[in-house]
Amino acid sequence: MSSLNRISGILTPNLTPVDSQGRVDDDCLRGYVDWLIERGVDGLYPNGSTGEFIRFTPSERRHIVQVVVDQNRGRVPVLAGAAEANVKETIEACNAYGEMGVRAVAIVAPYYYRLSSEGVYAYFRQIADSVDVDVTLYNIPLFASPIDVETVRRLAMDCPRVIGIKDSSGDLPNMMRMIQSIRPQRSDFSFLTGWDAALVPMLIAGCDGGTNATSGVVPELTRAIYQSVQEGRIEEAMQMQYQLLPLFDAMLGAGEFPEGFRQGARARGWDMGAGRQPKTPQQQAALDGVRSEIERLVSQLSNQPIAGVTADDISTINAIVRRVLEQL
Amino acid sequence: MSSLNRISGILTPNLTPVDSQGRVDDDCLRGYVDWLIERGVDGLYPNGSTGEFIRFTPSERRHIVQVVVDQNRGRVPVLAGAAEANVKETIEACNAYGEMGVRAVAIVAPYYYRLSSEGVYAYFRQIADSVDVDVTLYNIPLFASPIDVETVRRLAMDCPRVIGIKDSSGDLPNMMRMIQSIRPQRSDFSFLTGWDAALVPMLIAGCDGGTNATSGVVPELTRAIYQSVQEGRIEEAMQMQYQLLPLFDAMLGAGEFPEGFRQGARARGWDMGAGRQPKTPQQQAALDGVRSEIERLVSQLSNQPIAGVTADDISTINAIVRRVLEQL
Amino acid sequence: MSSLNRISGILTPNLTPVDSQGRVDDDCLRGYVDWLIERGVDGLYPNGSTGEFIRFTPSERRHIVQVVVDQNRGRVPVLAGAAEANVKETIEACNAYGEMGVRAVAIVAPYYYRLSSEGVYAYFRQIADSVDVDVTLYNIPLFASPIDVETVRRLAMDCPRVIGIKDSSGDLPNMMRMIQSIRPQRSDFSFLTGWDAALVPMLIAGCDGGTNATSGVVPELTRAIYQSVQEGRIEEAMQMQYQLLPLFDAMLGAGEFPEGFRQGARARGWDMGAGRQPKTPQQQAALDGVRSEIERLVSQLSNQPIAGVTADDISTINAIVRRVLEQL
Amino acid sequence: MSSLNRISGILTPNLTPVDSQGRVDDDCLRGYVDWLIERGVDGLYPNGSTGEFIRFTPSERRHIVQVVVDQNRGRVPVLAGAAEANVKETIEACNAYGEMGVRAVAIVAPYYYRLSSEGVYAYFRQIADSVDVDVTLYNIPLFASPIDVETVRRLAMDCPRVIGIKDSSGDLPNMMRMIQSIRPQRSDFSFLTGWDAALVPMLIAGCDGGTNATSGVVPELTRAIYQSVQEGRIEEAMQMQYQLLPLFDAMLGAGEFPEGFRQGARARGWDMGAGRQPKTPQQQAALDGVRSEIERLVSQLSNQPIAGVTADDISTINAIVRRVLEQL
Repeated sequence: MSSLNRISGILTPNLTPVDSQGRVDDDCLRGYVDWLIERGVDGLYPNGSTGEFIRFTPSERRHIVQVVVDQNRGRVPVLAGAAEANVKETIEACNAYGEMGVRAVAIVAPYYYRLSSEGVYAYFRQIADSVDVDVTLYNIPLFASPIDVETVRRLAMDCPRVIGIKDSSGDLPNMMRMIQSIRPQRSDFSFLTGWDAALVPMLIAGCDGGTNATSGVVPELTRAIYQSVQEGRIEEAMQMQYQLLPLFDAMLGAGEFPEGFRQGARARGWDMGAGRQPKTPQQQAALDGVRSEIERLVSQLSNQPIAGVTADDISTINAIVRRVLEQL
Repeated sequence: MSSLNRISGILTPNLTPVDSQGRVDDDCLRGYVDWLIERGVDGLYPNGSTGEFIRFTPSERRHIVQVVVDQNRGRVPVLAGAAEANVKETIEACNAYGEMGVRAVAIVAPYYYRLSSEGVYAYFRQIADSVDVDVTLYNIPLFASPIDVETVRRLAMDCPRVIGIKDSSGDLPNMMRMIQSIRPQRSDFSFLTGWDAALVPMLIAGCDGGTNATSGVVPELTRAIYQSVQEGRIEEAMQMQYQLLPLFDAMLGAGEFPEGFRQGARARGWDMGAGRQPKTPQQQAALDGVRSEIERLVSQLSNQPIAGVTADDISTINAIVRRVLEQL
Repeated sequence: MSSLNRISGILTPNLTPVDSQGRVDDDCLRGYVDWLIERGVDGLYPNGSTGEFIRFTPSERRHIVQVVVDQNRGRVPVLAGAAEANVKETIEACNAYGEMGVRAVAIVAPYYYRLSSEGVYAYFRQIADSVDVDVTLYNIPLFASPIDVETVRRLAMDCPRVIGIKDSSGDLPNMMRMIQSIRPQRSDFSFLTGWDAALVPMLIAGCDGGTNATSGVVPELTRAIYQSVQEGRIEEAMQMQYQLLPLFDAMLGAGEFPEGFRQGARARGWDMGAGRQPKTPQQQAALDGVRSEIERLVSQLSNQPIAGVTADDISTINAIVRRVLEQL
Repeated sequence: MSSLNRISGILTPNLTPVDSQGRVDDDCLRGYVDWLIERGVDGLYPNGSTGEFIRFTPSERRHIVQVVVDQNRGRVPVLAGAAEANVKETIEACNAYGEMGVRAVAIVAPYYYRLSSEGVYAYFRQIADSVDVDVTLYNIPLFASPIDVETVRRLAMDCPRVIGIKDSSGDLPNMMRMIQSIRPQRSDFSFLTGWDAALVPMLIAGCDGGTNATSGVVPELTRAIYQSVQEGRIEEAMQMQYQLLPLFDAMLGAGEFPEGFRQGARARGWDMGAGRQPKTPQQQAALDGVRSEIERLVSQLSNQPIAGVTADDISTINAIVRRVLEQL
């Protein structure tokens, strides 16, 4: 199979908007899907960590994917988070999403219990041997059992249905080890990074793209980053990476994940609601305190034209970045 | 409220038997409930980590509690694991279990995402303010967000419905810090340890009891341990702790948790099935390799009469323990 | 060899006093040694972590041991920290301390690099095969390469010169695993705990004693704890453990270790100097802030007669502890 | 001060050869220094982690620097590891090395104890305020107290003598955070990476160079990598990064660090001796088992001309890399 089939570009692991009752806000989700696609994201990824899949019920998760697929109308590939309580439930979800027309499912490694490498392999192997849809592995060792390099390699070699990995570890050498050990035999296998803070280096190292939460807030910037690397303008890409980093840090540090990203989306006009994780008054006050900083950073980064970095109102941050890069 | 109300003694976080199709095996579960109660366990705890609550669906989890409550017929208190996808779902499960007649629910701290102490507080606070049943906190930092000493204290002071903690961290000084900061103001608050390897020291330090997976395999021994400490026979209790430890280690080290405990139950005549986590052939072979060792240890420890340690066939292990203790 | 030879009781890993120039304060050290012995400590342990061995030069370390041995005049056993830059230097230090008349040396596992279990074994094995003095292993995984249970067992079986372990991990089940696997074959092997927060449970589990930094501040209390356990008065011992814990926590939390213990000794009249690790003004202010709390706790705990807990001025803390224990 | 003064390029944290008696092998060290300089390394760094500074005595450490400085005869800048037992000893070593003519000293954060950020600041601040030589910070959180971004920034702002950081954490976004917060105000401040597995991405992100242990084994390759990035040939640089990674992994995984690098140097003709950390027969056998693999990788990578990758005998690895990169 050719590399042309690989999932590539920047996919948005989209937030799940909820209304004042805490229910999935379909209208907001549909509008947000359109907005993202219009701003150039290369794919959508409902039911990821950013989408708080774990805080929704099995039927809500299916509803979310259905809404995204329906609104998408085939414009971009959809990667649907499909992890359920156990192998049987996960396989059923995978097939349901396959029938809805998703490009592939993404399955996080088992969480809560920390499984051994062998246990992780057994889990994915059984799923991959049973489903009628392409599968991407989702490695996020901060939250779930780690999928080590050798396990990814084994699954890539043994399972034709496993067609990629989303890796949110941020471990660049590990990504290189995976690419080095798998790509020669599986040219159709996608390597996607989920660690926005290292997006440019990951792309330079050979990643096909990323599923990056920041693309749900500043899709113009992440798209411009991707294109710059594609076209060999590395210095420009790195300059934008330096712009992205403070926003990423600010959103990651604001309250419980993904609260800061919800604030970022709000700064773009999307009211994602209060989320399902309750907050103490102290947490709410802290969040209010960082909101204006997030808004300021979003405003600076989103005013720029696609693939450009010339707008007047980003002069402050640019001046710093310029001085940094002049001295490389 | 008096300390007489405290949940105490050894509760069994029971395994969930599944049949050859992977479905909950009601008959086996009912028989196992009777067997445990007959052997003197002081309570049952369905939907704990040992019960693999996370690998069952929401409706299966309710079914499991219903079967346990029904079969129990009020003989011992039932502590029902009630964590669901979010606060709203968890509250509904709590109330459903309350109506079934459980003594209390046990709610594990949020998992997958690692929440801050403030986030953990907010989560439990909202649940505790909304439910019609007593709540015990479940701290298992290996798998879920940690509930630190100060957060337990705040919840104990602020929430009358929070009536205890099950702590599986094994951190003895932390348990002492919790007891020291809470008991003077909340004489009705239970401290239960979930770390079998330190059961005796935890009881000596003032714990009311434990929810111990080993009690699902050798309930006679855990009961004898509890009674020995209650009656001040510390040396005898410690001797039994030394007997329990190798079995605990062997079961914990056998495959993915709680596979080893499933093997232990099998050695007592209960076929819990193959579990829902798939195994590779290599994992199955490794498990077969340790099964006989688990059976040997279980056999030694289960032949002894309640509260006694004199049976001939435990002479080997006893000889070692005797020499150990003679030299104290 | 008989168990009578075992190092036992509470040994003080003593602080190293420095004068205003930062030099070892011999006079203070001599006075402190006398004071500790008069208050009943069962041994002295210069050049431990509490003694900041790593912040002194090789020649200073030898000087410190010489002063302690000289002042001790054979009254109690001395355990001398002997770790140097490499195996050759360490062996020379061991033999020098042996000639000075120490009971044994204590050697921390290699630090900075984290060695494998095999590397840790090789290191201790070569030393133990070369020295003319008894050796105790020092396990403190927070700071140095961990010495796991199997490695301790191998060293105990293979090296007659290795006669004990000081374990500061605080891992009670691991201590039990070591005792269970070594004591039957090595009745002369000492198990000493360095984790004051779990001293009583460790003693109940069969430890021979402890090397406890708190014994350098409240030697009367740690002695009383040891005696209570020896004489089977477990409840009384546990009551004192509950008294010791808040002081231990306060001293451990005060600035960089062992600054809080230095403050504790000052509360007993020993000016240990400012230490060799510089402080920022902010750190100094924080330390001043906790000093009075440490003094208050020390004052409460040190007024009590040896092995007694009846003094009027500890009524506040006792009232709490009483309520705690009444409800066991 | 201009950026021209910045320490830059690839510096070798050189191994310390020992003879069969375990003494520093001056002749080998002198020959190795010449060999490294002839192969284009941009500087030397004795007494780093690769040089096992901690396994030598204070006087041996001075001797090592003296030999390196003497043999170097001013050809390349020398960065001398100067950490000693405490601030006073470290300051003396710094000044001694300054008088010897080193370009700067490198001081690792305090190890053994894990200090707070404030303690780390206090330590470096006192040294920087007292020495007559330029200082680089050495951050290696795997072995020593971490120096966090804010602490590096504070030291850069407050201490003119602090002129750079060697960071071996491998954390790329953290390196970017440091560059972004310091470079605009301190154009003379050097950022050097010590994590060879991410050398190219670190250079692209703006690092001035690296102190890389692999440069002591394949200096031609690390030099070619540096030059490629300098000249904007990113794809070629990345191709060489892919070649470097398997060798780095193999040397890092061979026995206790830096044993594998010693094997690598041996493959280039330098007998560094057996090292000072003893080995068990099992460890020696394991090392013998990986030696040929290290030799094979070294042979492939060292036959190539400087800045070229065309040699016939690296065809195998190149074929893989080519396929990898074709598909970027």
